[in-house]
Amino acid sequence: MEMEEGAVIQHGETSVSKAPPLPPPGRRSVIVSRLLSVTDIVLRFLAIGGTAASAIAMATTSETLPFSMPFVRFRAEYSDLPSFMFFVVANSVVCGYLVLSLPASVVHVFRPRARCSRVALVFFDTVMLALVTAGASAAAVIVYLAHRGSAKPNWFGICQQLTSFCGRVTGSLVGSFAAAVMLVTLVFLSALALAGRA
Amino acid sequence: MEMEEGAVIQHGETSVSKAPPLPPPGRRSVIVSRLLSVTDIVLRFLAIGGTAASAIAMATTSETLPFSMPFVRFRAEYSDLPSFMFFVVANSVVCGYLVLSLPASVVHVFRPRARCSRVALVFFDTVMLALVTAGASAAAVIVYLAHRGSAKPNWFGICQQLTSFCGRVTGSLVGSFAAAVMLVTLVFLSALALAGRA
Repeated sequence: MEMEEGAVIQHGETSVSKAPPLPPPGRRSVIVSRLLSVTDIVLRFLAIGGTAASAIAMATTSETLPFSMPFVRFRAEYSDLPSFMFFVVANSVVCGYLVLSLPASVVHVFRPRARCSRVALVFFDTVMLALVTAGASAAAVIVYLAHRGSAKPNWFGICQQLTSFCGRVTGSLVGSFAAAVMLVTLVFLSALALAGRA
Repeated sequence: MEMEEGAVIQHGETSVSKAPPLPPPGRRSVIVSRLLSVTDIVLRFLAIGGTAASAIAMATTSETLPFSMPFVRFRAEYSDLPSFMFFVVANSVVCGYLVLSLPASVVHVFRPRARCSRVALVFFDTVMLALVTAGASAAAVIVYLAHRGSAKPNWFGICQQLTSFCGRVTGSLVGSFAAAVMLVTLVFLSALALAGRA
């Protein structure tokens, strides 16, 4: 129970005679901070969904064509390309981190003036943003090459053959880029909460 | 000139009789905040150097081999590959932003309790971190492919022929990744300054 300034009951005074308790200083900033923390939790859940969906969609994709040619194997899996493996690992790591960061985010709803945990979250959110962006970008380059190829180094597109594989890996990028946008927003919300704390 | 708490000269009192001025509350936090702001400026200069060097190194690289084969042109430039173009654009944009953000960073040395500008810097630093990481990652994937190739989609390495080109584009990644690390540190420093402000 909070004891508010200006509401201390003096000796011999009854509780009936005292003035109605005034809102403590900064009550509005506490409410704003709690609202930010709740938004933080919602965004974390969405980012967990995005990264998990991306990692699963990429990791479970494979396609084998019913014909083959010498020197060209028409079987494609995510593990064929290091970029796709990095994408799966990066999304899994970020998803795991986001799950682990949820308790800290919940604590901020009840302790809106927390400082150290918020600064730690800003740091780790920023590192995870870099990781998920690197993964998504690396996979996007390979998806682009698979679709369009590149004339100068004679890298031909493979999506004319592997339509289902290409469709799924392209789709799996969406969740990852969405998670990156959410992590930017999370860092911004934490900075706002830190700025409005005093 | 700052007028400090507890050092107000009363009517009829001489300046000789007053007590030595006490440090105002939060003086230590102001010094720490200024130290953080100076570090911020230094890191911004280093990141400007890193992104500018990366963009220039990539944009000025080209190599033509003294022989050619049908269907294979042995002339390489950064504009041949969209990833390298994105790398140059991303690094140029981030470099431009960092130059423009310097005045705000200098203002923080003299106004350590600034809030809005710090929150704005955190937001834009985070967006720029995502941009420079995406650019560096996209270019790194192509550099990896150029060096090692990829067996499954029949993309052959081109660095056996284009040794000078590959060496320079590989080197140009260093400045970009270093700038990404500095931007993570900048976001962390801003969060620390916001946390220690009160």
